[in-house]
Amino acid sequence: MKSIKVGILGLGTVGGGTANVLQRNADEISRRAGRNIEVIMASVRDLARPRLCDCSSLTLTTDPFEVVNNPDVDIVVELIGGETLAKELMLLAIDNGKHVVTANKALIALHGNEIFAAAQEQGVSVLFESAVAGGISIIKSIREGLAGNRIELVAGIINGTGNFILTEMRDKGRPFEDVLAEAQALGYAEADPTFDVEGIDAAHKLTILASIAFGIPLQFDKVYTEGITDLSLTDVDYAEQLGYRIKHLGVAKASKDGIEMRVHPTLIPAKRLIANVDGVMNAVMVRGDAVGNTLHYGAGAGAEPTASAVVADIVDVARTITADPHNRVPHLAFQPDALIDLPVKSQDAFECAFYLRFEVNDVAGVMSQLSAQFADQNISIEAITQKEPKVDEDFVSVIFITQRTTEGRVNRAIKQIESMADVRKKAIKIRVEHLN
Amino acid sequence: MKSIKVGILGLGTVGGGTANVLQRNADEISRRAGRNIEVIMASVRDLARPRLCDCSSLTLTTDPFEVVNNPDVDIVVELIGGETLAKELMLLAIDNGKHVVTANKALIALHGNEIFAAAQEQGVSVLFESAVAGGISIIKSIREGLAGNRIELVAGIINGTGNFILTEMRDKGRPFEDVLAEAQALGYAEADPTFDVEGIDAAHKLTILASIAFGIPLQFDKVYTEGITDLSLTDVDYAEQLGYRIKHLGVAKASKDGIEMRVHPTLIPAKRLIANVDGVMNAVMVRGDAVGNTLHYGAGAGAEPTASAVVADIVDVARTITADPHNRVPHLAFQPDALIDLPVKSQDAFECAFYLRFEVNDVAGVMSQLSAQFADQNISIEAITQKEPKVDEDFVSVIFITQRTTEGRVNRAIKQIESMADVRKKAIKIRVEHLN
Repeated sequence: MKSIKVGILGLGTVGGGTANVLQRNADEISRRAGRNIEVIMASVRDLARPRLCDCSSLTLTTDPFEVVNNPDVDIVVELIGGETLAKELMLLAIDNGKHVVTANKALIALHGNEIFAAAQEQGVSVLFESAVAGGISIIKSIREGLAGNRIELVAGIINGTGNFILTEMRDKGRPFEDVLAEAQALGYAEADPTFDVEGIDAAHKLTILASIAFGIPLQFDKVYTEGITDLSLTDVDYAEQLGYRIKHLGVAKASKDGIEMRVHPTLIPAKRLIANVDGVMNAVMVRGDAVGNTLHYGAGAGAEPTASAVVADIVDVARTITADPHNRVPHLAFQPDALIDLPVKSQDAFECAFYLRFEVNDVAGVMSQLSAQFADQNISIEAITQKEPKVDEDFVSVIFITQRTTEGRVNRAIKQIESMADVRKKAIKIRVEHLN
Repeated sequence: MKSIKVGILGLGTVGGGTANVLQRNADEISRRAGRNIEVIMASVRDLARPRLCDCSSLTLTTDPFEVVNNPDVDIVVELIGGETLAKELMLLAIDNGKHVVTANKALIALHGNEIFAAAQEQGVSVLFESAVAGGISIIKSIREGLAGNRIELVAGIINGTGNFILTEMRDKGRPFEDVLAEAQALGYAEADPTFDVEGIDAAHKLTILASIAFGIPLQFDKVYTEGITDLSLTDVDYAEQLGYRIKHLGVAKASKDGIEMRVHPTLIPAKRLIANVDGVMNAVMVRGDAVGNTLHYGAGAGAEPTASAVVADIVDVARTITADPHNRVPHLAFQPDALIDLPVKSQDAFECAFYLRFEVNDVAGVMSQLSAQFADQNISIEAITQKEPKVDEDFVSVIFITQRTTEGRVNRAIKQIESMADVRKKAIKIRVEHLN
């Protein structure tokens, strides 16, 4: 039984977790894979640093190029993150005829088209299950499990930090800044939380999900991205009263006039399973024309859940290592020459329902003036609520839930309403997805 | 581009759905698979019967052996059900060097060991994703997506009819017989509902899940099976009041002293996602040592969801058709020579918590007499509730929720309690799984 030899770039949280899982479950894994899988080498930044895993059986080096150029290594596992060095190493590994497994969502979202073309040319695999939603194996589910479907919708809670913050805001009535500080103390959020709270991390993952769902090239720059930093407890609370819950969703939708790719806070009916995914957990809903709605739930981050996906990819590579390179599962689910550059919709063309809150003077006739603007734009209203002024407030909040419409119409209505004398401040607009 | 030629045995609901999905999504599927997949032949019972699919491009025959012996057919899709003819046809197809895709859970659960041995010998694949939980692709998720994990627990709502009945009982307070009659009228339940309501269908599926989770041979006869026919509204209601929901679960659990395989009504904390899976939907929770808890949700039955899984299997076969037969994903997730015949626990050794309800005369001291029996068996009690007599009742219900213990201890305590003078009728015992 030939053993498969793995070299790991980066032995931090996920790298250490991967080495641990491969060692701890070595017997179970070789019973499945039919071969031993052995980590023989790893690159680290500092040889003296304490490790999460037992390194006695592997060669450590501070030079990642040694791993990538080691002729004994069959599979390079890239876990150093970042875009520059990681990309150089990955392309060199591919050039050296090695298979690559990576958890680097930014690298795949931004440079995947180039990387996969190189891999295709060399007849090697680049697998990236751990780049999206950690241990859930959502990429495998879409790419293989739903291969018979025309995928219509992917909607996911794909950033654990953001979901932790929203869950705490709702459950404990704590403001955003307060929960963010705690998440940082707990290690859920980075010192610089921009990627998480501004939705960039989720946008990287959505880029990948949209590609494999619809057979389009990776195009991160076309994802509309809105974070959770501006979300107020007031709206979290009003949403709840109206039977909704606010989640930060990545949404990719296909319709006959194009693809929507967007990341933003979203009202979801509270009774949907995905509305009840709390804390740092991730979940992705996928709708296919044959299968209907499916939901895939699990830990989206952390050393071992991410390692679970990395190891699954390693086993997949081991299983196809002798296979015809042109008959493997294609990187982006569709054959490279069958990707279609479908039009990606701009924000004005997004189709969904909307939660809109206006702060208005409590004078007669204001509600009918507001309603008239929606009628002008042909927007149907699902529900209207007027809230009493809170203590110290001299205005009332008026909340509209629209029926499904386009964002362009809604923006035009908002512009008209904001120009009205009795309307205060900027309107609050949050998208609503019913996911039924 | 060589096309893959499919022959279908049985063109009923699932067969018609499969042909429809393959035709409707032909372009999408060949963009993914890199080859065309074409149904060229199907066997039916009655040529004159109206069809769910367009049959103009395929040869219909009433002789299924014609399909299995057709040298042009690459993949035989077995959808006739049953164990005798289906098995004969499947073994003949394998013998003829054809790959097989099947939705036949009974056949796999009861004869899978023999069928897979034959397939292994011939170097062909037998895929059966659609046999468990329809479109969810739970087999792929466990067998491949979680290949790095030691699986600890699988717990699933894997019979849609049963879940529909339990959901209606809870939501509308309707008794079992009443809902069953409606389910039959709606076509969710068969005219003979035994397989669904007695848990046999779920036990077939659990047999398969346990094998691929733990690497043990298929052994349907060792699954403990209890249906939902004896479940009363009283207990559905009391469970709800205590913060639980009753679901009919298939549970497979690994511990160092053996495997538990059991199918029965189960109290689950109402806040768990799986407790909120309602109607005919299926969901399977899988716990791995690295990934933690995952949940996989979707439609478990119906023409197109089942067809979704059948087509995914066909695409999988198409992708590995040129591969080294000994390097494919093994049928039962583990290499055939690596399956281990772990001990399967008997009912007395099952470990979980229990909901126990006793009907007792409303006399002083009875509660302490009952409690003493649990103390005698070293069973700790989590909660005790005494319910007022209902109108027309001259007894009170006493409900105990135990902490985790063995079923043997619980049965001994029940036996003692049932022999007491002030205790009426048979005790109600329902297992509790916290799934946290």
